[in-house]
Amino acid sequence: MNKKDDKEGLTRGTIQLLKDGKKDIFRELIEELKPYDQAMLYQNIPTKHKPLFLELLTLLEVTGLLRHLSKDEQLLVLKTLDPKRATDILDLMEVDDLAFLLDDLSLKEIDNLIVKMQLEEMEILRRIMRYPKKTAGRVMTTRYIWVHHSYTVEQAIHKLKSFRNIAAYINYLYVIDDDKKLIGVVSYRDLLLADLNKCIEMFMEKNVVKIDGLTKQEEAAKIIGRYDFVSLPVTDENNILVGIITVDDILDIVVQEANEDIEKLLATGKEITFQTNPFVAARRRMPWLILLLFIGLVSGGIIERFENTLETVVALAFFMPMIAGMTGNTGTQSLAVVVRGLVSEDLNFKKASQLLFRELLVGIIIGITCAIFIAMIAYVWRGSLALGLVVGASLLATLIIGTLAGTVIPLILYKLKADPAVASGPLITTINDILSLLIYFGIATMFISNLM
Amino acid sequence: MNKKDDKEGLTRGTIQLLKDGKKDIFRELIEELKPYDQAMLYQNIPTKHKPLFLELLTLLEVTGLLRHLSKDEQLLVLKTLDPKRATDILDLMEVDDLAFLLDDLSLKEIDNLIVKMQLEEMEILRRIMRYPKKTAGRVMTTRYIWVHHSYTVEQAIHKLKSFRNIAAYINYLYVIDDDKKLIGVVSYRDLLLADLNKCIEMFMEKNVVKIDGLTKQEEAAKIIGRYDFVSLPVTDENNILVGIITVDDILDIVVQEANEDIEKLLATGKEITFQTNPFVAARRRMPWLILLLFIGLVSGGIIERFENTLETVVALAFFMPMIAGMTGNTGTQSLAVVVRGLVSEDLNFKKASQLLFRELLVGIIIGITCAIFIAMIAYVWRGSLALGLVVGASLLATLIIGTLAGTVIPLILYKLKADPAVASGPLITTINDILSLLIYFGIATMFISNLM
Repeated sequence: MNKKDDKEGLTRGTIQLLKDGKKDIFRELIEELKPYDQAMLYQNIPTKHKPLFLELLTLLEVTGLLRHLSKDEQLLVLKTLDPKRATDILDLMEVDDLAFLLDDLSLKEIDNLIVKMQLEEMEILRRIMRYPKKTAGRVMTTRYIWVHHSYTVEQAIHKLKSFRNIAAYINYLYVIDDDKKLIGVVSYRDLLLADLNKCIEMFMEKNVVKIDGLTKQEEAAKIIGRYDFVSLPVTDENNILVGIITVDDILDIVVQEANEDIEKLLATGKEITFQTNPFVAARRRMPWLILLLFIGLVSGGIIERFENTLETVVALAFFMPMIAGMTGNTGTQSLAVVVRGLVSEDLNFKKASQLLFRELLVGIIIGITCAIFIAMIAYVWRGSLALGLVVGASLLATLIIGTLAGTVIPLILYKLKADPAVASGPLITTINDILSLLIYFGIATMFISNLM
Repeated sequence: MNKKDDKEGLTRGTIQLLKDGKKDIFRELIEELKPYDQAMLYQNIPTKHKPLFLELLTLLEVTGLLRHLSKDEQLLVLKTLDPKRATDILDLMEVDDLAFLLDDLSLKEIDNLIVKMQLEEMEILRRIMRYPKKTAGRVMTTRYIWVHHSYTVEQAIHKLKSFRNIAAYINYLYVIDDDKKLIGVVSYRDLLLADLNKCIEMFMEKNVVKIDGLTKQEEAAKIIGRYDFVSLPVTDENNILVGIITVDDILDIVVQEANEDIEKLLATGKEITFQTNPFVAARRRMPWLILLLFIGLVSGGIIERFENTLETVVALAFFMPMIAGMTGNTGTQSLAVVVRGLVSEDLNFKKASQLLFRELLVGIIIGITCAIFIAMIAYVWRGSLALGLVVGASLLATLIIGTLAGTVIPLILYKLKADPAVASGPLITTINDILSLLIYFGIATMFISNLM
C-alpha cells in the first residue's frame, strides 16, 4: 500500500515540477531514480508533459529509459526528440536493442531513423540484423572488452579504464590470440585477485564455453542456466569473437519463451499484453477461435452421423461433454509435460522412447481408474449396466489414445526440428475431440441393442 | 549429431577408464569438464560404477556436481559417500541449495544428514529454513562479502583475497556501517577502476535496491529483471544484510514459476519431469482429472434437465461441443493474458479496470464475428433459420460471458493476494462449460416451438 502511495505521490510531484518549470529540483529527483523507475514515471505522466520531461534528461538517461518501454513507445520517444538528439541516442543504444526496435519497421522508416547514425555503429547494426530472429547473433551485444593474451593484469586494467562506459555491465574480459580467435576468458574477480604484473595468459580460463551466432536463443539460455554464467561469448565459424550474450538478456528471453509456450499451448494469440488495444487483441485471438469453430463443426458432423444412435438413446448425450473434455485434458497434460521438459533437457531417441512408454503407462493407469469410476456412476445414475460399460470402455480407450497423441505429436515435431509447442492445445484438443466422439459413438452403436 | 556422438564417446570412455582403474587419466578428463557436464556424465554411467566415480572426485567437485542433480539423486549421492565426506560436502554446499534439499525430508532424515555439520553452518541453515518456502530468504545465499564503509580499495581487495572461495560467484561487495546496516554497494568493476587508496564510501552506490527476506521469490525475479542486476541484497526489518540472491538462482526461479503457471493453467499436475515414474505422474495428474470428471457429470446433469428439448430437436446436440469448446477456450485465452501479464507488471485498480473493459470489448468483437458466422452455417447446414439464430445468439452470449469470467476470476484472486493461476484452465473451463450449456439450452427451450 505504502509503495503504491509513494508511486502516486512521485508522479503528482513530478507533474507539478514540470508545470512550475522547477528544472533543478526535477533533475535532483531524476538522478535518484534508476532507469526502470524513470521509465515508469515517464509512462505515468500525461502526454503533454512528456516532451519537457525528455528534454530535461541527459542522452544516457533517455537511452536507459528507452530499454524499459514497449516498441511503440520507443518509436514515439524517438519522434518526439529533435532529430540530432534522436540520432545520438540511436548511437548510444545497444545494438541488440536497436535490432529489436527496427525488427518490424519498413525499410523507409528504418532509413529515416538511422540515416544520420555513425557509420561504424551502422555497420555493426547491419551485421547483427543479418542473423535470423531469435538467434544468439541477434540478441548479442557487441559491447565487450577483449585483450591480447600477452597482456599483463596492469595493461588489462588500463584498457578497462579507457573503456569505462562499456565495462559497466560486463564481468569478464575476453582473451584473443594474434588471429583474433577467442582463446580464454578472465573474470573481473580474477583480475582483482591477481598480481598486477602477472600475464593474463597464466591464469585465464582456457576451457571457454561459447556458442555460434546462429545458435537459437533458447539454446543460449539453456547454457547460461547450466553453467551459472553471467555472460556467454558468441563466435563465428572461425572462432572469432563477434559479441556476448548477457544474463539480463537471457532473463528476458526465458520469460518471452515461456510466454510463447503458453500462447501456443493455450492458443491465446501472439503477444497480447495489458496494453494491447481491443481490436488488435481480438484480431490476434481470432484465428484460433475460428479454427476451433470449424473443429467444433467437425465434431457436430460426427454426431450427426450417429444421429440414429443418439435419437434411440438420448442419455448418450449426457456423457459427451465429459468424455470429450477428459480426453482433451489428458492430452494437453501430456503435451505440457513434453514441451516444458524440453526447456531444460535435451532429448535423444532412448529418452524419447522411455518418455513415450511412461506416458503410455500413465494413460493406462489413469484410464482404468477413471473408467471404473464412471462405469459405476453411469450405472447408478441411469440404471443401465450396458450404458455403464459403454461409457467406461469408451473413456478407457479415449484416455489412452489422448495421452499418446499428446506425447507423440510434439515428439514428432521436435524430431522434425519444428517447435513442439505448435502442436498446441487446440490441435491436440481437436484431434482428441474427434477421436473421442468416434470411439464413444462407435462403441455405443455396436452395443445399441443392449442400450435400448 | 556430432555433439551427441561426442557425448556417447565420453560416457563409454569414462566407463572404460573406471573399469581399468586408470585413475590419472580419469582425473585429467574430469578436470576438463565443468560441473554441469560432470553431472551429466555421472548420470549416464551405470550405477555400479558410480561409487568409484564419486570417490575419485574432490570434495569441491562433488559439491558442484550435486547442484545439477535432482533431489532424489542428490540424496542417493550423499548416501553413497562415506559419512565423513558427506558431512564435509554438506558444509561446502550453499545454504539455499541445502535448504531446498532438506525441504521435504522428515526430521529424522534431516538429523541423520546434518548431525555432524559444523555448528556455524547449521545455525545459518536453521535461520534460512525459518523463512517460508518461495521467499527471498529461502533462496538467498549467505556467501557474500561485506566491508566497512571506512575501508579503502586496497583493504577491500585484501579482504576479497582472504575470502577467495566465496568471492567466486559474486560481483559486488556490500558496504555496511557500524550498526551492520547496509548502506552501499560496490561492484568488482568499480574496484578495478578506482585508485587503491581511495575510500570505498567515496564512490559506492548509495541508492541500494534491496528486498526483505519475506518478499516472494517472484518479486525478487521482477526486480532483478527490471534493474539488470546480477545479484540483489536481502535485508531484515532493521536493514541488516542477511544474504544475497544471485541471478543464476533467479533464472531457475523464472523457469520454475513459468512451469508452475503452465501446470496450473493446463492442470497438468505438479512437477512432472521426464524422470518422474509413471505411478507418481499418474497420481499427480489424477486429482484434476477426477475433478473434471465430476464437472463433466454436472454438464451431463444440465443436459438431462433439458432432455425434452434435446429429444425434440436432436440437432441441438450437434452444436454442443462447438459452443462449450469455444466458451472454454476464449475464457482460457483471457486467463492466460492476465496470469502472464502479471509476471512482469504490477496492477492497480485503474489498470485492472482498463483491462476488464478491454477484455469486454474483445469478447463483444469476437462474439459478434463468430455468432454471425455460425448462424449462417447452422442455417445452411440444417435449413432452419430459427436454429441458426438460436445457435448464433447463444454463442454471442457465451463468448462474452466466457471472456469476462476468464478475466474477472484471476483478477479477484490477485486482489485477494492469492495466486491468480489457481483459477487455472479447468476451473474456468468448468464454469464456462456449465454457463454455456445453461445459456444454449435455455435459449433453445424458449424458442422450442420455432425449432420444431
